[in-house]
Amino acid sequence: MNAARQLHLGAFMRPVSLHTGAWRYPGAYPDANFSFARLKSFALKLEAAKFDAFFMADHLAVLNMPIEALRRSHTVTSFEPFTLLSALAAVTERIGLVATASTTFDQPYHVARRFASLDHISAGRAGWNIVTTSNPDAARNFGLDEHVEHGERYARAREFFDVVTGLWDSFADDAFIRDAESGIFFDPERLHVLDHTGPELKVRGPLNIARPPQGWPVIVQAGQSEPGRQLAAETAEVVFCSPRDLSAGKALYADIKGRLAAVGRAPDSLKILPAAFVVIGDTVEEARARRLRLDSLVHYDSAIASLSIALGHDASGFDPDAPLPPIPETNDSKTGRAQVLKLAEEERLTVRQLAQRYGGYAGLAFVGTVDTVADEMAAWLEEKGSDGFNVVFPYLPQGLDDVAERLVPELQRRGLFRTDYAGQTLRDHLGLSRPKNRFFE
Amino acid sequence: MNAARQLHLGAFMRPVSLHTGAWRYPGAYPDANFSFARLKSFALKLEAAKFDAFFMADHLAVLNMPIEALRRSHTVTSFEPFTLLSALAAVTERIGLVATASTTFDQPYHVARRFASLDHISAGRAGWNIVTTSNPDAARNFGLDEHVEHGERYARAREFFDVVTGLWDSFADDAFIRDAESGIFFDPERLHVLDHTGPELKVRGPLNIARPPQGWPVIVQAGQSEPGRQLAAETAEVVFCSPRDLSAGKALYADIKGRLAAVGRAPDSLKILPAAFVVIGDTVEEARARRLRLDSLVHYDSAIASLSIALGHDASGFDPDAPLPPIPETNDSKTGRAQVLKLAEEERLTVRQLAQRYGGYAGLAFVGTVDTVADEMAAWLEEKGSDGFNVVFPYLPQGLDDVAERLVPELQRRGLFRTDYAGQTLRDHLGLSRPKNRFFE
Ligand SMILES: Cc1cc2nc3c(=O)[nH]c(=O)nc-3n(C[C@H](O)[C@H](O)[C@H](O)COP(=O)(O)O)c2cc1C
Ligand SMILES: Cc1cc2nc3c(=O)[nH]c(=O)nc-3n(C[C@H](O)[C@H](O)[C@H](O)COP(=O)(O)O)c2cc1C
Repeated sequence: MNAARQLHLGAFMRPVSLHTGAWRYPGAYPDANFSFARLKSFALKLEAAKFDAFFMADHLAVLNMPIEALRRSHTVTSFEPFTLLSALAAVTERIGLVATASTTFDQPYHVARRFASLDHISAGRAGWNIVTTSNPDAARNFGLDEHVEHGERYARAREFFDVVTGLWDSFADDAFIRDAESGIFFDPERLHVLDHTGPELKVRGPLNIARPPQGWPVIVQAGQSEPGRQLAAETAEVVFCSPRDLSAGKALYADIKGRLAAVGRAPDSLKILPAAFVVIGDTVEEARARRLRLDSLVHYDSAIASLSIALGHDASGFDPDAPLPPIPETNDSKTGRAQVLKLAEEERLTVRQLAQRYGGYAGLAFVGTVDTVADEMAAWLEEKGSDGFNVVFPYLPQGLDDVAERLVPELQRRGLFRTDYAGQTLRDHLGLSRPKNRFFE
Repeated sequence: MNAARQLHLGAFMRPVSLHTGAWRYPGAYPDANFSFARLKSFALKLEAAKFDAFFMADHLAVLNMPIEALRRSHTVTSFEPFTLLSALAAVTERIGLVATASTTFDQPYHVARRFASLDHISAGRAGWNIVTTSNPDAARNFGLDEHVEHGERYARAREFFDVVTGLWDSFADDAFIRDAESGIFFDPERLHVLDHTGPELKVRGPLNIARPPQGWPVIVQAGQSEPGRQLAAETAEVVFCSPRDLSAGKALYADIKGRLAAVGRAPDSLKILPAAFVVIGDTVEEARARRLRLDSLVHYDSAIASLSIALGHDASGFDPDAPLPPIPETNDSKTGRAQVLKLAEEERLTVRQLAQRYGGYAGLAFVGTVDTVADEMAAWLEEKGSDGFNVVFPYLPQGLDDVAERLVPELQRRGLFRTDYAGQTLRDHLGLSRPKNRFFE
């Protein structure tokens, strides 16, 4: 008999909260996104709560936003993922460590080597979030005047994946003999030279590091476009995504899982984890009040710009403290407009509050008590909206503590989340098998 | 009054011993070069001994050597420097962490960011060993068929240094206000966009990380050619080098320090640390016997090839267990031949022993008691052969323990080495000042 399906939980940790007002929330550490001591304490709490993974998003530039928003943004200084996750590997024991690396602006030899090294140092806890990097400012930090075109980015990403995994397979698992007596350190018969030549990449190999403990670090992907979904189906073992609600989540889940059979993969070999913003209160009203309080910390100038984009209509002339006035329908942004109107109606928000929602964090959110949030998470799992979540904390440490110390015990009580790690590696936590070496038995 | 000059000591840690037979020495850990637990214990011992720095050499390929040598080589699997040093940063407090990064096969935005991140995570203990990468096999792992030409490598290195240091200066030290009350995170007036366009590189900036605690991580350089020395004079704060003996050391020291005035630098702003292989015994005879024992672990096939190269003459037909036969002088390798003959005479070595010396480690070596080795180190310091050493351990843990627990106390007793760290950063340990930000007061 199969064990009941359980949630997988990742923590979205760069910046520590995606909400632009988080660093100003009462009790928050304004420097949390860039303090090793704080990040270490968060990682230890998440490990105590048995989270699957600690996830470092990454951007190869200062994020492009108007200066009025940028000067208020806690994203502007952050650690580089490998240095941070390696440091955390030395002070944690079980939690997975997922780093983002770009296939557009890095080299497969470097990427393969660093992830292999992180996997060895952490005893099998590394994961690679493959991104093609959508921020065009990144290109200008790497010698280009313009961004690489979307299709070409994905073509390179696919080939990059083949090269990196091929390099990871350079040595058979039993290649290293280390026989001090005979003086033989390794068996050259158990070493493969990749010699890859493709349209985008030319890489000889072998890698100068033993095969990772996990065989390959866990492959994560977060592209949402058609080529992004196809890359996920062909390569990913975890998909990070951002559906707006359960019905969108179910559609995306069915779409991505539906692509697996055609490439000869089992549905269970890929886990789908939407980003979910979680705000806990003793009552639903308290949770909502906390969220409004947090949203109120978003500066109005950047907030109203975000609302205008969502509406497809300039909102800067509206009375901030009145309800949303009637807005003519346009062809440009039908879904965006409809979503704003629905939200304004449901939560009875003023223009200012609506704007601050869009300027803060407007994605999927679970706002309520541990009970109502556990109900919602259970529904997503049950109705095949997801295999778990990549949790976005509203503010830290409080919002993280609320999840780790209050929500997780409730999920555990319901049998929806592990009460202890069953294995050592990130693959063990996620229920993923160890890939075979393509060159050796 | 100035304090008496003291030695600076680095530890050459990749591979843990450069000696090819080290992993076979009695008591050695055959997996030490690739075991985080071992490397952590070494770093802690070196820190307890107040070493300036732990140095990770690096190579972007499996080292090119004949397969008979390669299969006996403990270099074939190693950690990537940033992942290893970041992990060590989390478990050490004072020792400097010097990583090697290539200017030929990496991107300045990546390099600037990773060193800045390591410097922040370690609270000011990072150093960058700038290499242009001489191993031609590396080129083939990065899309090229042939190695980049030497002069072009150094031209790129010089420009690369300007870009990396310019990126480190992206933010003024006081740029981050983090005022939760007003919501201002940083002052855009204290942010500089580099906008570099040069013959080799085009990089916009700014870097997405605050200026490193040390201003810039310590700049290390190890090139020996004319452009290598000039790059050192213009940019380096530490030079790693490998003079064969004190007279060569003095010439190199005078040459490099002599170049500083022309570029407007004080002699003391650059420290010269030759690699030194240190073998300690209770008596000089015991130390020599240990070295012979270690050399005897080098396989004869690779040993004799190394000797032939040093002699400029095929030695494979010689009787291994007899003294070196007379060898006709050639024009090809006058110095090499003279050095071999001198060594054969001084230490009365057989062909086999000579070969194993060249196949093991043939560079500068101090072999003796703590007293004789301290005398030699003192002479180098006194006679301006060096400002200290980058110690190569013959075998580990024993050879490292002998230095950390026996030689260092003797150096301390003589006032030649610190008895405790006086400051927090690697710059403090080395007596180097913090560079000014070129864009901000
Ligand atoms: C949860 C989540 C996390 C993401 N993290 C990153 C990241 O760290 N770095 C990055 O460059 N892009 C990141 N992305 C963006 C995706 O990689 C991708 O560029 C984006 O979803 C657009 O899809 P497309 O590239 O297929 O058009 C993330 C996306 C999602 C949904
Ligand atoms: C002590 C020492 C350490 C070195 N470490 C490295 C290293 O880690 N990686 C590397 O590619 N080269 C290393 N080198 C080689 C130098 O960077 C340089 O390529 C070599 O000395 C030849 O000099 P040249 O490039 O100026 O001709 C080292 C050299 C010395 C003396």
